Amino acid sequence: MSDAPPRVAVLGVGLIGGSIGLAARKRLGAQVTGYDTDAEALGRGVELGALGAGAGSLAEAVAEADVVFCAAPVRALPALVAEACDTAPTDAVITDVGSAKRGIVEAVAVDAEAGRRFIGGHPLAGAETAGVENARADLFEGARWYLTPTEKVEGVAYDRLQRLLAEIGARPQAISADYHDRMMATVSHLPHVLANVLVAQASETLAQESERMPEAGPSFRDATRVAGANPAIWSDIYAMNAEALAGEVEASAERLLKIAAALRGGDAATLADWQRDAGERHRLLTEQAAGGTLVKLTLVVENRPGTVAEIALELGHAGVNIEDMALHPAADMKTGAITMWIAGADGAARAREIVERLGHSIA
Amino acid sequence: MSDAPPRVAVLGVGLIGGSIGLAARKRLGAQVTGYDTDAEALGRGVELGALGAGAGSLAEAVAEADVVFCAAPVRALPALVAEACDTAPTDAVITDVGSAKRGIVEAVAVDAEAGRRFIGGHPLAGAETAGVENARADLFEGARWYLTPTEKVEGVAYDRLQRLLAEIGARPQAISADYHDRMMATVSHLPHVLANVLVAQASETLAQESERMPEAGPSFRDATRVAGANPAIWSDIYAMNAEALAGEVEASAERLLKIAAALRGGDAATLADWQRDAGERHRLLTEQAAGGTLVKLTLVVENRPGTVAEIALELGHAGVNIEDMALHPAADMKTGAITMWIAGADGAARAREIVERLGHSIA
Repeated sequence: MSDAPPRVAVLGVGLIGGSIGLAARKRLGAQVTGYDTDAEALGRGVELGALGAGAGSLAEAVAEADVVFCAAPVRALPALVAEACDTAPTDAVITDVGSAKRGIVEAVAVDAEAGRRFIGGHPLAGAETAGVENARADLFEGARWYLTPTEKVEGVAYDRLQRLLAEIGARPQAISADYHDRMMATVSHLPHVLANVLVAQASETLAQESERMPEAGPSFRDATRVAGANPAIWSDIYAMNAEALAGEVEASAERLLKIAAALRGGDAATLADWQRDAGERHRLLTEQAAGGTLVKLTLVVENRPGTVAEIALELGHAGVNIEDMALHPAADMKTGAITMWIAGADGAARAREIVERLGHSIA
Repeated sequence: MSDAPPRVAVLGVGLIGGSIGLAARKRLGAQVTGYDTDAEALGRGVELGALGAGAGSLAEAVAEADVVFCAAPVRALPALVAEACDTAPTDAVITDVGSAKRGIVEAVAVDAEAGRRFIGGHPLAGAETAGVENARADLFEGARWYLTPTEKVEGVAYDRLQRLLAEIGARPQAISADYHDRMMATVSHLPHVLANVLVAQASETLAQESERMPEAGPSFRDATRVAGANPAIWSDIYAMNAEALAGEVEASAERLLKIAAALRGGDAATLADWQRDAGERHRLLTEQAAGGTLVKLTLVVENRPGTVAEIALELGHAGVNIEDMALHPAADMKTGAITMWIAGADGAARAREIVERLGHSIA
């Protein structure tokens, strides 16, 4: 790639593809050409400025590309990547943005020509929304972007791709496709599976006695929030990462059976150790993810409209940002506990001061 | 019980015992006597007005009681309930507030005399805080309070207890001890077990490659929030409800193994059906628990301090209360998605209008 702005092809114009286009155009002055089988999405992409031009075919979109992003739904990626590899100029680097990597990387690597310039990719961004309408130039700002190059990939291709990603604000990181998939299976896909298991379990237990769901605590609500999320997207994600996910699911089943045995054995010491160990692991993982210490504050407040707002507003004025928050309304909805996670001991000390000044007690 | 204010004994002066005392004194003018092996808690209870008097012994506390509440930590309940049954006047009704019921109900029922006036109880309130300092007269306002009478319990005893609970604002409901324990195992204890399994699974997978926890999505964060919660309390809860919980844990393991098989079998249709089914079950359970329709709104906002506050404040001014909220900060912490659950279609329509007026787009 010379110093001239890169030429980027975006195949699949949704939230991710659109945001790549916006960022590359805005930050690099890139020439971005898009293609989508959905003509409406393609038109919207041009309208919103995510694409400099909409192409009438994949071949037209990639004809002059330095970098080709395959950003279709995961199910469509294998065919799309194969076609892009067959069609793009021989010196173009081709990547995708799917959330499972091993299958696609192995499929492409069969073709030596494609294998030297295809690099699997996966940005950790934008999971909560979809559609090019929600695309933003800063979607990848500071976001981890996994790249899974094989040993066949040419250095110049990898360098070009990772430079472009860094230039649109992301933090590219190379990782093996195999490990990527196991990691995503654990930290992203398994929580969805467990949420589904929990609702199935609860609704069957309740149905046995024709009982309604009681006013469950926040643990059930939190644990099941993603149950059954977007079936079209998630059944594809499960299917694309089936092997790694199956391994994690089986390992979880094994852990559960061990816990059941400890319960039936009346092994109180094991249960206490296990609970303590989980708390310690949770603290470590949470701090790793946040990149620093998090302090948890729980306070009891009146649950009237505006209370949470008042607290958040005062913390905001003091420059204290809330990293995570959970509301636990009491049954009467008049009072409730709020748990907040605040970054750093200083922020937490300030938060504590402010909350107490507002007349709330910290539990 | 005559029309005179009831005489209540509270054995164990913590959040629940203290709140029973406050409510019974404030709402019924009850004569409340407390006892706790922790003299400091007992003193605080008197200071805070939760107890009219602190007794020097259990026998002294229950000597004149119409109703005896055993509100110690679950592990201490079997011995405490037995002693209360042996010591209290023969016409006093005795209850407890533990989160598992079958074990204690069966143990007490062995003694015919005790069995006719002991009724297991479990209020769904106050799980997030502890200590008499956090006791409140309105803790049980509108809260479900399960009662698990056996067929040996005298009608007059049940009537007296359930009337007192209703008078302090709770909603008593009779349920079999066996079913109570299975239900709590599913909706309350199992989420904790699954949270622990998930952190163990993630931390081991990451450790295999010496990787740090990535900036995980909200699904992991939500699903693990209670991992390792208060080991002293939770290992006792597990132990007290061991049999019912073991059953639910084993059933979950079985479900996971079926899912793993569907994943390995490449059975995409089963996975899609399963995901859809989980979504439908989740919707039903959530609406049952909320007692009405909940509408989910997801919006993308700047993540600067004050944004969440501004939105919550405006909704508050408009009388729209937020039933549940989840924040999903982007990696750069500059932008984020907010998911809110609003009660009722009307409230949701107003929320939508306000959020859009504030310049945020609903995803």
